Amino acid sequence: MTVAHQPADAAAQAIAARAQDHVDAARLAAALAALARFGGRDDGGVSRETLTDIDLAARRHLIEQARALGCEAGTDDCGNLFFRRPGREDLPPVLTGSHADTQPVGGKYDGAYGVLAGLEVIAALNAAGIDTLRPIEVVSWTNEEGSRFGPGAMGSSAFVDPARLIGYRDATDPAGIRFGDALDAALAASADLARLPMARPMSACVELHIEQGPVLEGAGVPLGVVTGIQAVRWFRVDCMGTMAHAGTTPMAVRRDAMAVAVAIAQEIYALAPRDAAAPGTPELRLTLGRWAVTPNSVNTIPGHVAFTVDMRCLDDAALDRAEAALRAACVRHASAPEAVTVTRFFHRAPTHFPEAMLDPIERACSRASDNAGRARPMRLTSGAFHDAMYLADHCPTAMIFVPSRGGISHNAAEDTDGADLFLGAQALAYTVAELASR
Amino acid sequence: MTVAHQPADAAAQAIAARAQDHVDAARLAAALAALARFGGRDDGGVSRETLTDIDLAARRHLIEQARALGCEAGTDDCGNLFFRRPGREDLPPVLTGSHADTQPVGGKYDGAYGVLAGLEVIAALNAAGIDTLRPIEVVSWTNEEGSRFGPGAMGSSAFVDPARLIGYRDATDPAGIRFGDALDAALAASADLARLPMARPMSACVELHIEQGPVLEGAGVPLGVVTGIQAVRWFRVDCMGTMAHAGTTPMAVRRDAMAVAVAIAQEIYALAPRDAAAPGTPELRLTLGRWAVTPNSVNTIPGHVAFTVDMRCLDDAALDRAEAALRAACVRHASAPEAVTVTRFFHRAPTHFPEAMLDPIERACSRASDNAGRARPMRLTSGAFHDAMYLADHCPTAMIFVPSRGGISHNAAEDTDGADLFLGAQALAYTVAELASR
Repeated sequence: MTVAHQPADAAAQAIAARAQDHVDAARLAAALAALARFGGRDDGGVSRETLTDIDLAARRHLIEQARALGCEAGTDDCGNLFFRRPGREDLPPVLTGSHADTQPVGGKYDGAYGVLAGLEVIAALNAAGIDTLRPIEVVSWTNEEGSRFGPGAMGSSAFVDPARLIGYRDATDPAGIRFGDALDAALAASADLARLPMARPMSACVELHIEQGPVLEGAGVPLGVVTGIQAVRWFRVDCMGTMAHAGTTPMAVRRDAMAVAVAIAQEIYALAPRDAAAPGTPELRLTLGRWAVTPNSVNTIPGHVAFTVDMRCLDDAALDRAEAALRAACVRHASAPEAVTVTRFFHRAPTHFPEAMLDPIERACSRASDNAGRARPMRLTSGAFHDAMYLADHCPTAMIFVPSRGGISHNAAEDTDGADLFLGAQALAYTVAELASR
Repeated sequence: MTVAHQPADAAAQAIAARAQDHVDAARLAAALAALARFGGRDDGGVSRETLTDIDLAARRHLIEQARALGCEAGTDDCGNLFFRRPGREDLPPVLTGSHADTQPVGGKYDGAYGVLAGLEVIAALNAAGIDTLRPIEVVSWTNEEGSRFGPGAMGSSAFVDPARLIGYRDATDPAGIRFGDALDAALAASADLARLPMARPMSACVELHIEQGPVLEGAGVPLGVVTGIQAVRWFRVDCMGTMAHAGTTPMAVRRDAMAVAVAIAQEIYALAPRDAAAPGTPELRLTLGRWAVTPNSVNTIPGHVAFTVDMRCLDDAALDRAEAALRAACVRHASAPEAVTVTRFFHRAPTHFPEAMLDPIERACSRASDNAGRARPMRLTSGAFHDAMYLADHCPTAMIFVPSRGGISHNAAEDTDGADLFLGAQALAYTVAELASR
């Protein structure tokens, strides 16, 4: 993965190494613990859903921390927070960061780690006395989780395509509160911040995040170079039958919606066997997660069964084939043309991060790992969505992963070893400093 | 199905024929319409759940109607209503009737028809001036439906085995009201009725009911001689997996509770193919009606799936084989011994009505059908439970069915042709009069 470097690169890498060496493990740990107190739970988890009072207090805390580091704080029409460290020239900035909101019950690191490691990069640059060529901005995106207001990644997706915000404003939470109203209240509470334009040019974006999967831990590797994000397609399959008495209705005359749904589901599962995919072939992942059965009674033949299919793969052509197989299975098992319908209600093509971004990240991760005497970084793909998925539509983007203990996230039991969190911040400091120095 | 008759039988059959010929279609229709006004709905259905104010008013209505026919009204510890027409001798009575409670939304005939046809038999005997040897009692059983307080058929099952009532009294409805308290209120409201012993001797029991299935309608036959009631077993299958992220969790490490549930369900359905059973082989009926998925989210691998299996067959040995196959499938698909559990939470062996009861019923149905120029009666089994299922543990019992339009019941759209309702009451009158005359 090494490439020929111009002399300018050598200078940038020297600056990057110096930034990396000024990352402070104790300072990072203290910052993580301080933010985790906003919505912190007795079980070690964090409950800090987007734009709640707890989230607004956490946002003020971040603004204070960033200002203490000399950053200028700004926001935009979607309430995203930007903390800017000026460059020697007013060029498009290097962007890093993630999100500070959590699931209803989440962990301390999902999102928060990327924001606070970004602020730690600023602190390291300050400590090293480095002035970068380009400005550096640390972002905290609004509503990445999507648990209170759907969909997720509102802040980042609206930043890259502001037209999306119009629809997002009408999303409501379970209490009936509109996202637009909650957002306006948050913006009113940060009237002291500069209002920055949406979709501003960025020279690059790097997001550091916990993996939320078991790959790095399984490989014993502390740092992952994320090469892309799987494509995803979400379907709803509706099987229509006829409700009838379980005792009195002969098998031959039944129109059993569940029997049809099970036959289709069995064929869908067969598309993604549990054996590991062939080497070099991206794995197809299939989840049939949400089921609704009507009337859902022990002794009534189901009249309607609806279930969802979550299909993911890094290879969009594999998803084309899986979608065709799903649709064919539905046609084959339908007793009448209208008895089974398939609705695709969300899809996103695969995200491939550019090699020009992976190269400095791999260099950054290798240096941090080597210095710590740890296993060298590995390349992997992300199964989950991230704000970086949308930023990749806007500027050269990539991600760094650190391991998740047991692959667990969206759970109070989410955890990452402190040594790995430190290495991730070191890798981020190197990457950001190099990108901001050329 | 004809047997050699003694002279006494010939006399009984002559009385039976006279009773049958005095059944009045208009009087029966008026009685059905009058009771249907208690809880009657604009859509033609009836909402008269057990021991509600509407049900209590309907019970008073029935008591008045029975007294107007000269019957003595009594009740017992489970609130069952008995309307007695004395016999020439104080022998164990012939019992007929059904129930007057309905599902939350039911029809006009499910249960009510059997009670009112019983009263029509009394009216016909009165009109014909017949005094029977044995007393005749028309019963309206408490809480057959089981929708407000579970289980169903409380009144009839407690009548035959009074120890059951102790547990039933603790059943609560969705509002938290105990069955025992609702029952005591109903008994207090009928303090003018004689309190009769539970489990009194009965010489025979005949229940007339709508089929609630499509068999008679499909065959174009107005009257069915019910030879028995299918055995039933209810199971709950619990599949335990591990909740995890749909995007980040490789297929090879998943413990997907829904994938296991679907594989088991597919094997269960294969036990009961849709093709008609081989001639002479009782059909196995399988329904997987109730499903609960945790956490039931599009992008989370299910951590727990519970579903129910309703198995029915007239042949208990076939249910033994199906249960063994279900348990084997669960063991085969379990990833760990505790990952799939099977719990049998209800079962009832098949009910076979005795030929000594089927013979007079077949004679009664044949005479009514022949006189009307309709197709001769057919024998069939009941897929649904009925009060007669429990009475069969107590005395010689059988049932008569009339067709259900479209096989529909437990629904406002439940319906039966008036001509068929009349033939059913004629068949009941013949049967009861013959049984009470020997």
